[in-house]
Amino acid sequence: IMAGELLWKAADENDWAREPLAHLGNDRWQATFTPRRIGRHLCTVEAWRDDYASLCHEIEVKHKAGVDITLELIEARQYLEALNAKAVPCNTTALGKAIATLQDADVAASVHVLIAPATVKAVAASAERAFRVQHPPLLLDVERPQAEFASWYELFPRSQSGDANRHGTFDDVIARLPEIRAMGFDVLYFPPIHPIGKKNRKGRNNILTPAPDDLGSPYAIGSDEGGHDAIHPQLGTLDDFRRLVAAASENGLEIALDFAIQCSPDHPWLKDHPDWFKWRPDGSIKYAENPPKKYQDIVNVDFYGAGAPELWAALRDIVLYWAGEGVRIFRVDNPHTKPLPFWQWMIDEVRGRHPDVIFLSEAFTRPKMMYRLAKVGFSQSYTYFTWRNTKQELTDDLVELSTTEVKEFFRPNFFVNTPDINPYFLQTSGRPGFLIRAALAATLSGLWGVYSGFEVCEGAPLPGREEYLDSEKYEIRIRDRNAPGNIVAEITKLNQLRRANPALQSHLGVTFYNAFNDQILLYGKRLPGGEDMVLVAVSLDPHDVQEATFELPLWEWKLPDHGSLYVEDLMRGHGAVWTGKLQRVRLDPADLPFAIWRVTLPGGAP
Amino acid sequence: IMAGELLWKAADENDWAREPLAHLGNDRWQATFTPRRIGRHLCTVEAWRDDYASLCHEIEVKHKAGVDITLELIEARQYLEALNAKAVPCNTTALGKAIATLQDADVAASVHVLIAPATVKAVAASAERAFRVQHPPLLLDVERPQAEFASWYELFPRSQSGDANRHGTFDDVIARLPEIRAMGFDVLYFPPIHPIGKKNRKGRNNILTPAPDDLGSPYAIGSDEGGHDAIHPQLGTLDDFRRLVAAASENGLEIALDFAIQCSPDHPWLKDHPDWFKWRPDGSIKYAENPPKKYQDIVNVDFYGAGAPELWAALRDIVLYWAGEGVRIFRVDNPHTKPLPFWQWMIDEVRGRHPDVIFLSEAFTRPKMMYRLAKVGFSQSYTYFTWRNTKQELTDDLVELSTTEVKEFFRPNFFVNTPDINPYFLQTSGRPGFLIRAALAATLSGLWGVYSGFEVCEGAPLPGREEYLDSEKYEIRIRDRNAPGNIVAEITKLNQLRRANPALQSHLGVTFYNAFNDQILLYGKRLPGGEDMVLVAVSLDPHDVQEATFELPLWEWKLPDHGSLYVEDLMRGHGAVWTGKLQRVRLDPADLPFAIWRVTLPGGAP
Repeated sequence: IMAGELLWKAADENDWAREPLAHLGNDRWQATFTPRRIGRHLCTVEAWRDDYASLCHEIEVKHKAGVDITLELIEARQYLEALNAKAVPCNTTALGKAIATLQDADVAASVHVLIAPATVKAVAASAERAFRVQHPPLLLDVERPQAEFASWYELFPRSQSGDANRHGTFDDVIARLPEIRAMGFDVLYFPPIHPIGKKNRKGRNNILTPAPDDLGSPYAIGSDEGGHDAIHPQLGTLDDFRRLVAAASENGLEIALDFAIQCSPDHPWLKDHPDWFKWRPDGSIKYAENPPKKYQDIVNVDFYGAGAPELWAALRDIVLYWAGEGVRIFRVDNPHTKPLPFWQWMIDEVRGRHPDVIFLSEAFTRPKMMYRLAKVGFSQSYTYFTWRNTKQELTDDLVELSTTEVKEFFRPNFFVNTPDINPYFLQTSGRPGFLIRAALAATLSGLWGVYSGFEVCEGAPLPGREEYLDSEKYEIRIRDRNAPGNIVAEITKLNQLRRANPALQSHLGVTFYNAFNDQILLYGKRLPGGEDMVLVAVSLDPHDVQEATFELPLWEWKLPDHGSLYVEDLMRGHGAVWTGKLQRVRLDPADLPFAIWRVTLPGGAP
Repeated sequence: IMAGELLWKAADENDWAREPLAHLGNDRWQATFTPRRIGRHLCTVEAWRDDYASLCHEIEVKHKAGVDITLELIEARQYLEALNAKAVPCNTTALGKAIATLQDADVAASVHVLIAPATVKAVAASAERAFRVQHPPLLLDVERPQAEFASWYELFPRSQSGDANRHGTFDDVIARLPEIRAMGFDVLYFPPIHPIGKKNRKGRNNILTPAPDDLGSPYAIGSDEGGHDAIHPQLGTLDDFRRLVAAASENGLEIALDFAIQCSPDHPWLKDHPDWFKWRPDGSIKYAENPPKKYQDIVNVDFYGAGAPELWAALRDIVLYWAGEGVRIFRVDNPHTKPLPFWQWMIDEVRGRHPDVIFLSEAFTRPKMMYRLAKVGFSQSYTYFTWRNTKQELTDDLVELSTTEVKEFFRPNFFVNTPDINPYFLQTSGRPGFLIRAALAATLSGLWGVYSGFEVCEGAPLPGREEYLDSEKYEIRIRDRNAPGNIVAEITKLNQLRRANPALQSHLGVTFYNAFNDQILLYGKRLPGGEDMVLVAVSLDPHDVQEATFELPLWEWKLPDHGSLYVEDLMRGHGAVWTGKLQRVRLDPADLPFAIWRVTLPGGAP
């Protein structure tokens, strides 16, 4: 008979906490533990041959079968005597008492004392664990709930003045906080807020010949006004920023900053730390490229150049600086183009001081690299969701994310759009397409994100490109959030449903069910062991009415095909008992191209 | 741009052989190697950042796009000059020549010399591999083909005299060799051939009160006539055994011996090495049990007792002794009840001297233990096949064995029966059931085995038990192999087909296809990249005719649903062109309850 324990501790603790492993059968064992705080933890398993349990098991079985166990009882007594001899001999201990009983008692009483909890406990305390082995410790990052469940809203602070001719400020953002919170968002994320370079500045629509009053891309970080630890003067002062952080917190919002490592050609570092860059034979530095995109207004640092040690420390210190200002969420720009060892070290350093810091990886790259970034410490990641539109694509992606080993370490953040990505689907879908994408993102993942403009169904593209016309990256954009056709009410409702239904607070626990129409995706979300299910039907067609017969998953409640469930329509707020496995749904893009139900046993209905 | 190599060597070699890794896309890389001999090997991968390839790639792409590459060419020249400076400077090397060209040539000629194979080769020879990493070496056991493909036949030598009143001898076995080989078997396996204990000897049908002339179980090894390195005197002498090994070899058969570690109570070791056993308070040793089976005639050694080091060496030396007598295959009795570290050590020791030794694990136990034994060195294993009778069971097992990671290290040996297992299915199936099980085993696995009696459809059970009546383990059994209803011809044909069709020489490469009848299993076997397929339909019903419409897998040849294939019936020897995806099969247990076809493109037909 084997025995085992799960061992765990916070990385800075000395002693392992131990939980007994229960044998589930077929060589699978289980134990659970709940960390007492967030931060880096270690865990492992220890296993050994439990000689005393083997002995007792044999004695019990044989005794019940009426087999003579005289010899076995002598062996058991000798085992206990040998144990007792190793300790200070004493007749008043549990071991001593058991030995005394075994010398006189009849068979039944002997068996009783051998398997008594006090005896078992005493043996466990003094017996060596035969063939004890320990697995090398495994790392476990314990993060706060927001690493898995949060609704993100992205905006450019400079666009928040309400007047295209006036540069927005942090105070303008403060004024918008109640409205953003009212939509149900938790995280307010800004593109870089640092001084913008002047050399090679981009003009509107990414042209190389800016007008004198063009503002440039905030991703061209650094000028004679400062670098990554400075604030763009037109946005406000450090004090203004501090007021913004405080006001956001009062409104139930967290500020997320962009950590974009690149520099504009007049970033102070080029002069102060020339050994952090790779210089070409003509004295220039190569500008950044992400083919086919060219970034003539930025250059990259050299992570393995002569100045690497100071550079790495300086980059870490930038994150620590903003963390010192109360920022606990960083969206990291293009981490896959920087070394993995840097991220692993940097995230360890930051989390060692601030274990509540969350890092979002903007790695639109090969899956293995995305997963690797999660392994070295990123809390969550952008995904391919933005380009997944068909039933098969969405199903395949969610099955990979929620059922393979990926689910152990990778959390997706489903952004419906970004300043860089104006999805082709939304360019022609009209309002119903925005509702479809919002419903998918908000119900499939615990983390979803909206870049402002989405709620007013902005989708005008640069012709033929997956980019926005008049991109906000290069100019101020003023929007009328009350414009007819906005979907603010629907986004607000979706975020309310996410808060009210824990099954919607993770990408895990999703199951896809049969809807007999390739344009209708049907899935249920459930907590492990949960009674209720959130069932979602989404039409993937923004243009025409779609209908389908679908299977109500009665079997998940062990009900027969003619069983009944209570179904509450969460978007419309009415409920009914549905009977029978086959049901019908009709989704009209002119009305609402999706339906969200809470499904319970009829007895469980309110 | 990354580059990588696969490194491999035999475990006793010093230098790695290297094969370049080809990039398949999506971060997957591939290389292959063919070991030059059998035995333990090591392999690993090395990867690095190929700076020169990155440089050349950028230059080529930009040059083709008409971009000015003046600076890039200077950088390339500086890169080569730096390399050259590390070597003894010389203008006649490939590097030196390339540098000279770059100083004068025009852009096109410069690009040409940079990407010239001679330059690339010279750079690879002298450049450091940036960020070079090596995976820790992985162990790889290279075995001879018989580890994966062989047909086994098991018999008790003492039953081969043809006369129930005369104890069979090795000479009787020699007389039977041509007939066994004619059935197509490759391996002839004997239960233990050592002296049989007299103390607690079992009588016929496993009773505890033997008659004076009862022979006992050969698994009760050891008596005053010797132990594991001795031969039961009634079978013959060591010289007789040597003649048998030689005769088997002349007949194309290999002898497999049983390695059963247990001892009869009068095995010489009990007296000579009392510290190899665990003694009870009354001076006895516990007899072996494998609940509910009791083996009063055997005791087990103590692998971790005081005499462990000598015991382990003695056990190894037994295997080495018989290996010294030319035996290269051992069937190991109940390895899962002995320590895994013992097997790992023992198999390493034996294979270090005789890398061609094959070990078959008789571990009817939990899957994880079966797989673990494969990992520590067993070449092949008994499986649950003997109890798998339904379409779902057979499909699930084969899918696990041939498509999961198990396929990398575990080879199944499908025994249709054993002296210990008289499957319930065969107890009532009559002759058609024996044909069904033979066809399944012989076509699903590269390794299959028959215990004698199967070919004459013996199935009389101990009432209500999965055991044979009058088990040969306790008495001599004489059989008439020409008895009416024998299936010798069908077994012979199956073994011929296995030899003629390499796709049948492994359990890998199997795909299950749709046959619309739960009593008919349909599967194809193909070599990787193979042109032909062996397609097998087996009725699982030994009593009634079964028919099914089934799908001829035209799509595997990229043919449309109305395409045609040439199909040869391998059991009956005729062929025809079949057209269309849906075909019909009728399987009559009174005739032949299975069909085996070779399927090829019509042009590929003979």
